[in-house]
Amino acid sequence: MPANDLGLHRGYGIFDFLRVTDHVPLFWDDHLDRFYRSAAFMRLTPAQSKEELKTILKELMQKNGLPDSGIKLLLTGGASPDGYQIGEPNLMIFQQLIPPPPDTILLPGFALLTYQHQRQLPEIKTTDYMMAIRLQPWVKENGADDILYHHGGTVSECPRSNFFIVTQKNVLATPGKNILKGITRKQLLAIASMTGITVEERELSMNDIREAKESFITSSTKRLIPVTRVDDIVFPAFSKDSVTARLYNAFKEWELSAIHKHR
Amino acid sequence: MPANDLGLHRGYGIFDFLRVTDHVPLFWDDHLDRFYRSAAFMRLTPAQSKEELKTILKELMQKNGLPDSGIKLLLTGGASPDGYQIGEPNLMIFQQLIPPPPDTILLPGFALLTYQHQRQLPEIKTTDYMMAIRLQPWVKENGADDILYHHGGTVSECPRSNFFIVTQKNVLATPGKNILKGITRKQLLAIASMTGITVEERELSMNDIREAKESFITSSTKRLIPVTRVDDIVFPAFSKDSVTARLYNAFKEWELSAIHKHR
Repeated sequence: MPANDLGLHRGYGIFDFLRVTDHVPLFWDDHLDRFYRSAAFMRLTPAQSKEELKTILKELMQKNGLPDSGIKLLLTGGASPDGYQIGEPNLMIFQQLIPPPPDTILLPGFALLTYQHQRQLPEIKTTDYMMAIRLQPWVKENGADDILYHHGGTVSECPRSNFFIVTQKNVLATPGKNILKGITRKQLLAIASMTGITVEERELSMNDIREAKESFITSSTKRLIPVTRVDDIVFPAFSKDSVTARLYNAFKEWELSAIHKHR
Repeated sequence: MPANDLGLHRGYGIFDFLRVTDHVPLFWDDHLDRFYRSAAFMRLTPAQSKEELKTILKELMQKNGLPDSGIKLLLTGGASPDGYQIGEPNLMIFQQLIPPPPDTILLPGFALLTYQHQRQLPEIKTTDYMMAIRLQPWVKENGADDILYHHGGTVSECPRSNFFIVTQKNVLATPGKNILKGITRKQLLAIASMTGITVEERELSMNDIREAKESFITSSTKRLIPVTRVDDIVFPAFSKDSVTARLYNAFKEWELSAIHKHR
């Protein structure tokens, strides 16, 4: 990467990150489609087509031979003539060892702290994690595991995960606006609908959270993780009869069938 | 820079930029003080003290021998063990040729387009210019020179400049909150007070701009540039009897005396 890349100097970059399980790049069509959408929104055009990127990823996976890992595609504004105008985009691809998600749901789960913030350009996967990284020590000092952003009376998302509640009527509800729509979130909403769980994409207030009976977050690296508390709102301990448990099990099966289909 | 630097991957970085004129790093104490303030706010501790940085800058200027240039100090979150926690900060220093500001005020000046946005962590000089860079084509398409951010009914700043108006009563008014306080802005406010011009740091609405008789922006590389229009609000052509002209001349003298003092 040239020393004057806009990704470094102006925070001008987008990326995507996918999990490789048992040598299979999970839901890579979804991740690559989102990668191109993010790029287009930021006026960046990758030199490679989606099919060419797939060929590169296959070669990379074969060379590295890592059964469980993460692949990151990073696209930046490139070397700028004046340090401000967009240049020729630079593409960097990283494959790294990451621990596979646990075989059973992670317990007891995550405690979340709310923080008032609305990410800029939330619908695309930019490299802007400034707020989240700066707040990490504060999260730890308060005995929590992650942040839940809120703004104007409604919550949106965690910095690297999507947020869900299950209402008393067993409706699965999750914010649908001003968020990055995760790939796990997308798969999960499809699974929920198929298994007869009503899904609502809508605004969620703190009161909605207070009245919910379950809550969890999703991400590509973590699948589903139960939420144990949001600020002072405490949820009952995870139970095997919960909607969260049903969805976790259904998601794991879905993931397995995706692996088989890929082969 | 390591390939896993948080400045590149998570937009986690701060910087400062100072102008070198006639081999003199202008107002470098102010720039370096702000650099350390930005770093502290982002929980980054440079390995070098201010005096050590000055020694490095002196050596750099001597080696490069550029009478007119810009020096950029960039500090990033460094190589992170997990791509998320802050690492050992990386410091990069760049000296580059930049055209010196013109010897007389730049005419006719800049046309500004307002855009609704509030920068995150506005008080410190982060590398986050995502919004401004993405909007550049839109600015050009609309025949303008730069953006003026506004939010909640008041304007704040341009992406790389501070914004001022001169009221009908010859008061110099400029936003005082939710902005990056520029070094030229700081010097100019001191000069204005010394020359008997009343200064007000306060909220500015579009109506305040409509009723103003002059407007200009300031930056370290551009000194003062008259504003010709903000959206549909057009200002009279620059006049040598204007407050803007008085301030520009006073600033140039101030700059000259700073150069002499530095020697």
